[in-house]
Amino acid sequence: MPQTLTEKILSRAAGKSVSPGDVVEINVDIAAFHDLTGYHVIEVMEKAGMLKVFDKQKIVIAFDHLAPPPDVRSAEIQTQIRKFVKQLSIPNFHDINVGILHQILLEKYANPGYVIVAADSHTTTSGAVGAFAQGLGASDVAAAVITGKTWIMVPQPFKITLEGKPGKWINGKDVSLKILGDFKADYFNGMSIEVFVKEPSAFPMDFRATVSNMGIEMNADALMFVPDEETINYIKTNRGYEPPTIRPDEEAKYVDEYTIELNKLEPLVAAPHSVDNVKTVNEVEGLDVDQVYIGSCTNGRLSDFEMAAKILKGKRVKTRCIAIPASYDLFKKAMDLGYIEILVNAGCVVTYGTCGPCLGGHFGVAGPGETIVSTSSRNFKGRMGSNDSKVYLSGPAVAAATALEGKITDPRRFS
Amino acid sequence: MPQTLTEKILSRAAGKSVSPGDVVEINVDIAAFHDLTGYHVIEVMEKAGMLKVFDKQKIVIAFDHLAPPPDVRSAEIQTQIRKFVKQLSIPNFHDINVGILHQILLEKYANPGYVIVAADSHTTTSGAVGAFAQGLGASDVAAAVITGKTWIMVPQPFKITLEGKPGKWINGKDVSLKILGDFKADYFNGMSIEVFVKEPSAFPMDFRATVSNMGIEMNADALMFVPDEETINYIKTNRGYEPPTIRPDEEAKYVDEYTIELNKLEPLVAAPHSVDNVKTVNEVEGLDVDQVYIGSCTNGRLSDFEMAAKILKGKRVKTRCIAIPASYDLFKKAMDLGYIEILVNAGCVVTYGTCGPCLGGHFGVAGPGETIVSTSSRNFKGRMGSNDSKVYLSGPAVAAATALEGKITDPRRFS
Repeated sequence: MPQTLTEKILSRAAGKSVSPGDVVEINVDIAAFHDLTGYHVIEVMEKAGMLKVFDKQKIVIAFDHLAPPPDVRSAEIQTQIRKFVKQLSIPNFHDINVGILHQILLEKYANPGYVIVAADSHTTTSGAVGAFAQGLGASDVAAAVITGKTWIMVPQPFKITLEGKPGKWINGKDVSLKILGDFKADYFNGMSIEVFVKEPSAFPMDFRATVSNMGIEMNADALMFVPDEETINYIKTNRGYEPPTIRPDEEAKYVDEYTIELNKLEPLVAAPHSVDNVKTVNEVEGLDVDQVYIGSCTNGRLSDFEMAAKILKGKRVKTRCIAIPASYDLFKKAMDLGYIEILVNAGCVVTYGTCGPCLGGHFGVAGPGETIVSTSSRNFKGRMGSNDSKVYLSGPAVAAATALEGKITDPRRFS
Repeated sequence: MPQTLTEKILSRAAGKSVSPGDVVEINVDIAAFHDLTGYHVIEVMEKAGMLKVFDKQKIVIAFDHLAPPPDVRSAEIQTQIRKFVKQLSIPNFHDINVGILHQILLEKYANPGYVIVAADSHTTTSGAVGAFAQGLGASDVAAAVITGKTWIMVPQPFKITLEGKPGKWINGKDVSLKILGDFKADYFNGMSIEVFVKEPSAFPMDFRATVSNMGIEMNADALMFVPDEETINYIKTNRGYEPPTIRPDEEAKYVDEYTIELNKLEPLVAAPHSVDNVKTVNEVEGLDVDQVYIGSCTNGRLSDFEMAAKILKGKRVKTRCIAIPASYDLFKKAMDLGYIEILVNAGCVVTYGTCGPCLGGHFGVAGPGETIVSTSSRNFKGRMGSNDSKVYLSGPAVAAATALEGKITDPRRFS
């Protein structure tokens, strides 16, 4: 029987042919956690008296949420995790100067067809390379870390097709928000989304990563881009090897499908206080903004800073702007390409590799009464700080244009 | 009667000739505060029902301690101060993307002979250009902000002479620690230190700023470098004008004097838990270190990063290293000169213009059991985070060499 990508990956991981609705035990290829959840993962392992890992090479740990630590407790948690790493000789450990877990998984570890579980909801990001990647609670991740297995109810596959080429200021965020606006945030419960890109190079890995990242905002179990030449090219360029590939069968069946014509998209924002409160930028244009954040595992990649730099070049921001490439490698590349210089000259505060303000963790927490435009993933009440702040989610072009004007601005003005 | 620099400045400020021990009211040239103390300053002004400033041009405000804000409360305080700034139309306000107050005062405002008061102990930093600069409590600063006046007991003047040229890896920190080691931290109570540099260009402004900054660690009321061609050159280069100058009279009397031969200094550190627990780097060499911090109003200037970059160029740190130029302008200069690239390539986490870890505020707080080498100013128990952490203070050369080796290292190894 022809299989979807979801069925193919989960069948291999279960060691038998599976169909939507089946509850099965599956092997995981990577189990991962970060500083904030890692503490709980290790606590569960300790309480279970099983401080061991199924395969050292398949554990990935990164400090990102509260890195560098903004308080003693965060520092203490990081110290405890470093101790765990040392004790179990875990090689794939990334301290405060490497990057956000999801970005590191994408850069260094995720492959097409992998099953990846991590103690963070935005694990779906690795779906960008065609991995079935899912965030789990700390206890489930602890079990996966120990045994190399987890359980799953095989989700219903949903097909999305991206056609054509996006306009100059459009990127993955606009595609995510288009889906969220059209379907609302709970529509994809129990489903996995498989995205087919008609013109692979027109929708590069950075854009895909944003859409997969936002898969969890759609409540999807996974959001995978069907591996194509863009996928192979990305992994070859980043890691020097050609990954194994996997694709759904031609006749595979989906519960439903949906097509987005990329050339018809316009810059979108998610207004407070929900990711699916989607509006065109023109609907909210002119609103005063106190702070702009360009970064996060959602939109903290090279193409995001390229877009921001194009808008900010030679100008000065009118509002506070915090710009954080999602990893060390991305910061270095952005520096080599002159984007960091442009951002700094424009007056942005920069650093790299921390989640920082996205979760209201540190480095730009939203105060009472403030309005934030952010390229991150969530805007529920209090997400970025005060319960009395408002967050508008956007792509980097809207964010940069907004920073420049001090109010929500259509980036197409800068064409 | 011949006057010291202290007497000259305070006589002008008092409108009459003053001598050590006199208690007098003086006019201030600049009154300043930052986010952390600004809140209290404004609160005092509000409670007094006097929300007004004596001279808008003479108030300087900068956000540095908790910038960008690591929590909602810090964000809220900054919002309140922005409101104050707007309400009173204060022009010299510097938001989260400008720098540490003391560095900004030095770069943009402090002049020889000025009286500067600010709600932060390290206000002594502006003594580097020959200003009588003193940290006061929030209530006293509030009074100065309202009235343009403060009161002072004229301190006893103490003369220090710097002779010769410092060695390659020696900077202002080693001079400060030499003084602290020889005199102990409470020796200069009730005194103001006036430093005469025999070869002005051999001890540039960055070095002077470090020594003046550490003046408060010596408990001095002020630590001023007698203005010379280096002073004039610094202000001309930075601000494009030639400042008025002021010097003590030839025959002025000091309570005591002390000479440092710069060429005889070796790299020094202050071991836990006191600034005057001074040792040579060789006495503590080899000690394992968890984190290095290069930055702060003490040692976050261009020459500090130049020194660090010389050591780190083309290499990778073995321990966490956080590098924070003290201001936006310094970050830009360090970027233009390639230092930022060297630091990032070496694996340092970078940002700019925040006090961050120096006060255990955020962005690298020390955890329990950790040993830190820091170029900042204080190492009392808990200063940089956990009460159970240890801080060794040093200059940037020792700090960079230590980051490279993961243990306290003599930078002269890299000659």
